[in-house]
Amino acid sequence: MTVAVIPFKPKNPKTRLSCVLDEQEREAFAEAMLLDVVDVVRDADCQAVILGTELFDSELVQVTIKDMGLSDALNVYLSCAVTDVLIIMADLPLADKESVKRVTGTKKDMAIVPGRGGGTNAIYLKEPARFHVDYYGGSYLKHMRIAKECGLSCDVIDSFRLHTDIDEKEDLVELLVHGSGKSRAYLEGLGFSFITDNGRIGVVRKH
Amino acid sequence: MTVAVIPFKPKNPKTRLSCVLDEQEREAFAEAMLLDVVDVVRDADCQAVILGTELFDSELVQVTIKDMGLSDALNVYLSCAVTDVLIIMADLPLADKESVKRVTGTKKDMAIVPGRGGGTNAIYLKEPARFHVDYYGGSYLKHMRIAKECGLSCDVIDSFRLHTDIDEKEDLVELLVHGSGKSRAYLEGLGFSFITDNGRIGVVRKH
Repeated sequence: MTVAVIPFKPKNPKTRLSCVLDEQEREAFAEAMLLDVVDVVRDADCQAVILGTELFDSELVQVTIKDMGLSDALNVYLSCAVTDVLIIMADLPLADKESVKRVTGTKKDMAIVPGRGGGTNAIYLKEPARFHVDYYGGSYLKHMRIAKECGLSCDVIDSFRLHTDIDEKEDLVELLVHGSGKSRAYLEGLGFSFITDNGRIGVVRKH
Repeated sequence: MTVAVIPFKPKNPKTRLSCVLDEQEREAFAEAMLLDVVDVVRDADCQAVILGTELFDSELVQVTIKDMGLSDALNVYLSCAVTDVLIIMADLPLADKESVKRVTGTKKDMAIVPGRGGGTNAIYLKEPARFHVDYYGGSYLKHMRIAKECGLSCDVIDSFRLHTDIDEKEDLVELLVHGSGKSRAYLEGLGFSFITDNGRIGVVRKH
C-alpha cells in the first residue's frame, strides 16, 4: 500500500494568515486542512503518516524527526522507505480522490505536482530511495532537475486542486468556492464567507 | 470543427500589471498571450476566433460586436453558433494541448474550467444555444448554476494550466516557471527573470 507522508507543523502554523486568524485559530485551521488531506489520501488507497518535528495530540500515525529541516527529515524517511511513497503537503484542502489518483497512477517512475509560486505540492515515488527532495526556493524546478540527474522518468500532474496551497487571505476564496471538507466548515463556523466587490470575489469575516 | 472563441481587449489591457509594464508593453504582452492561446487551441484541433468590441491589426479571424459587455457579446455569438464552442480566455499562456483536449474531450454536455478567485477560464459547449454566460463576480458558481437550470450535465476540469490567469505581478512567476511560448519570451526579452528571496520566488526586471 502506498504510504502518503504529510509534513505538518502543529505550532504557530500559517503565519501569513495572521491578518484574519489568531494563533489558536490558525492551529485549528491547519489541523482541519491536514484532516481533509488525510481523508482524501485514505480514499485514494494510501496510508497516511504525519511527518513532524514534534508530536501533537492526535490519533494519526506520526513519525517525528527532531532537529532537522523539512528536506533532511523527508530524505531520512525516503532512504528507509520500503513501499512507494506520496509526499503531499498538509495545506491542500481542495485535494480530491481523483486528483490524488492521477498522481499515484502515473506510468512513469515518479510524478510531481507543482504548487503556486514555483513550489512543489506533491511528489510520488515508486522507488523512494532513488530520489531526494530539496524544498524551498523554487523547489519545482529543483525537483525536476533532481529527477533528471537520478535518471527517473517524471510526470507533471496538471491539477489546480493540488496546485492551490492555502497560505494567504486571498487563497481562502478558493477554499470557500471549491472546498467541501472540515477546513471549509471551520472557516464558515468562524463567520467567513465570500463577497463580490467590483466584479472580483473577496472574503469577509462576519463575527 | 470546434470553434474556440477567445475574448480579447487590445487597448489598455491588463491594468493590474501597470506596476511592471507600461501601456504599450501591456498591449504587446496581452497579444503575445493571445497568440500562445491561439497556437494551443489550433494544436488541439480548434478553429480560433477572436471576439472583441474593436478590430485590431492582426491576421486572426475576428468577430467584432460593438457596444456590448463581454457576457452579452458572447451570448449573441452562442445563440447563432452552428458548431460546438470552446470559450477560452486570452490570458492563459500556460494552456497546453493536453489541457485543452481534456476540456473538449468531455463526455458530458459541457465542461467548465474554474479560474483563480472564483472566475471561469474556459467553457466548452456541445450545444451552445442551450447555455448563456454571465461573467464577473464569482462567475464559476453562476455558470455551474446556469448549467443545472439548463439541464446540462457539466464536467469540471481540474487543470492548473487553465486555472492560472495572468493578471498581477505575482502571476508572472508562474509564466516564467511553467510557460514556454511567445509571452514568456516577451517577458524574458524585457529582462524579467525570477529570483529566490527568503525561500519564496519573486520576479525582477533587470533593465
